[in-house]
Amino acid sequence: MNSLPGLQEVKVARERIKDFVHRTPVLTCKSVDAMAGGSLFFKCENFQKAGAFKIRGACNAVFSLSEAEARRGVATHSSGNHGAAIALAARWRGVPAYVVMPDNAAQIKKAAVAGYGAEIVFCEPTLEAREETLARVLGRTGAAFVHPYNDARVIAGQGTAGLELCEDRPDMDAVLAPVGGGGLLSGTAIAVSAVSPRTVVIGAEPDQADDAYRSLRAGRIVPAGNPQTIADGLRTSLGDLTFALIQRHVKEIVTVGEEEITRAMRTVWERMKIIIEPSAAVPLAALLGGRIDLSGKRVGVILSGGNLDFDRLPWQR
Amino acid sequence: MNSLPGLQEVKVARERIKDFVHRTPVLTCKSVDAMAGGSLFFKCENFQKAGAFKIRGACNAVFSLSEAEARRGVATHSSGNHGAAIALAARWRGVPAYVVMPDNAAQIKKAAVAGYGAEIVFCEPTLEAREETLARVLGRTGAAFVHPYNDARVIAGQGTAGLELCEDRPDMDAVLAPVGGGGLLSGTAIAVSAVSPRTVVIGAEPDQADDAYRSLRAGRIVPAGNPQTIADGLRTSLGDLTFALIQRHVKEIVTVGEEEITRAMRTVWERMKIIIEPSAAVPLAALLGGRIDLSGKRVGVILSGGNLDFDRLPWQR
Repeated sequence: MNSLPGLQEVKVARERIKDFVHRTPVLTCKSVDAMAGGSLFFKCENFQKAGAFKIRGACNAVFSLSEAEARRGVATHSSGNHGAAIALAARWRGVPAYVVMPDNAAQIKKAAVAGYGAEIVFCEPTLEAREETLARVLGRTGAAFVHPYNDARVIAGQGTAGLELCEDRPDMDAVLAPVGGGGLLSGTAIAVSAVSPRTVVIGAEPDQADDAYRSLRAGRIVPAGNPQTIADGLRTSLGDLTFALIQRHVKEIVTVGEEEITRAMRTVWERMKIIIEPSAAVPLAALLGGRIDLSGKRVGVILSGGNLDFDRLPWQR
Repeated sequence: MNSLPGLQEVKVARERIKDFVHRTPVLTCKSVDAMAGGSLFFKCENFQKAGAFKIRGACNAVFSLSEAEARRGVATHSSGNHGAAIALAARWRGVPAYVVMPDNAAQIKKAAVAGYGAEIVFCEPTLEAREETLARVLGRTGAAFVHPYNDARVIAGQGTAGLELCEDRPDMDAVLAPVGGGGLLSGTAIAVSAVSPRTVVIGAEPDQADDAYRSLRAGRIVPAGNPQTIADGLRTSLGDLTFALIQRHVKEIVTVGEEEITRAMRTVWERMKIIIEPSAAVPLAALLGGRIDLSGKRVGVILSGGNLDFDRLPWQR
């Protein structure tokens, strides 16, 4: 299970999940193109089931389990979209889900996980408490653990978005994806580099959570230390699987400031009239903020999700 | 020009504007369907050029002008989306546009009109000042006046959205549209009643601006008196053309409360991840608020626009 997945695994994942997840649309916007100076193709995972790409990997992992494994349920830890995705995938398969969440998680995230019928097990918001609580849940239930990103099944599932994008737009010069734990970026890189070798894959992350940038430079995983960024989906650090895949298939990592993230997110809301969360705005922020020059190019941009708290928007902080 | 338009005029409008405006998508959402108890087909005019259906009527009116008329430009009064639409249509035709706006209009609206290259003529925010200022502009320039809704060319243009919706979903039981001045509703009613006679057309407006409801009851236009509603596009009252068409082709008008509008708008944001403005949420508010029972039915809902101030959302007032 911990060998590195490739295009074959992404293709198998696509067949496995295709009756459950949306094939999301690819949108374009002339006014954003004019601002970026290139032709952008937005893969809209904000329109995905449960509001984010996470359901692809979760669904692939949950439906990869044998009957005997699945019957004991699935477990994960997540303060965000992955927990809801595991809960939903488990409901589809008709098996129990256990989600370890910090007790200070956003109310909306708790409601989503509970709404999909998972059992939430709260813990204190520390790494130690999380590990300990998860171990207890696994011991009690015998559930199968599905890591949010450092899991070959999850990575292969996330790669299906990039595969679809390459099919819909076979002539891209580059594809940009945000990078937190690296599941989406590494999955995208597997698919794109295999299907369209001339297309470069670029990761984008906040200046405030630039562990992927520093890890690639150092040649080893340099974890982020409690990063403070509005892009709440990108606060995690790479795992060994995602790091190895990113080393192999990703051309570069660019980083962006908090202001640029907020501005890019607002640009998408205003110009495209679609809702994306801060993490999803990070690749566009790199383009609009001049952190990377792809003018005149055809660029795929994965809009990773659209889940956020509407009571307090980034520009209102 | 002031005879009542019919399906023929809508079809001509469609040919006239089709190279300029988007054929907007029709979206569906299972979770909203579950809340409403029917199958809803959302015609997404929030994705339209300039962010609202208004460009359809404005474009039809501006491109209906003779060369000699057009050369002198077009003029209108508007504090909202129609002004921007006229400005954009005039730019496409390469003629001047003059937009009379109250000096307290929202900054974002002023910026949109100016951004499309129109000359803004400010006036005090009273009906008298507006009429007087417009008359002065028309006298000075010889421009052609395009009323925001009580104009056969504008009505026919707005009707093209309903025509497209009927083509894409030929089997609807009902179509709902918001009603302010009545351009969108009357145009929709012309198209839908002619193309799909079994489909009923229903208008929805705020309780706080229920002039269409009261006008239909009274059998004469009962103007709204300075209505206070969050649905800023629906504060205007019917004109004689829109009233006559609505009397003839619209089955009923339903009204909704401010809370219901806010809740419906937020539901669309959360569940569909698309941005709509308060006015666009009014028909869904009628369904979700139980103001009208269409359970088990197939219902078209025109999402009229997506322009609003992101600094202050309705649920933050």
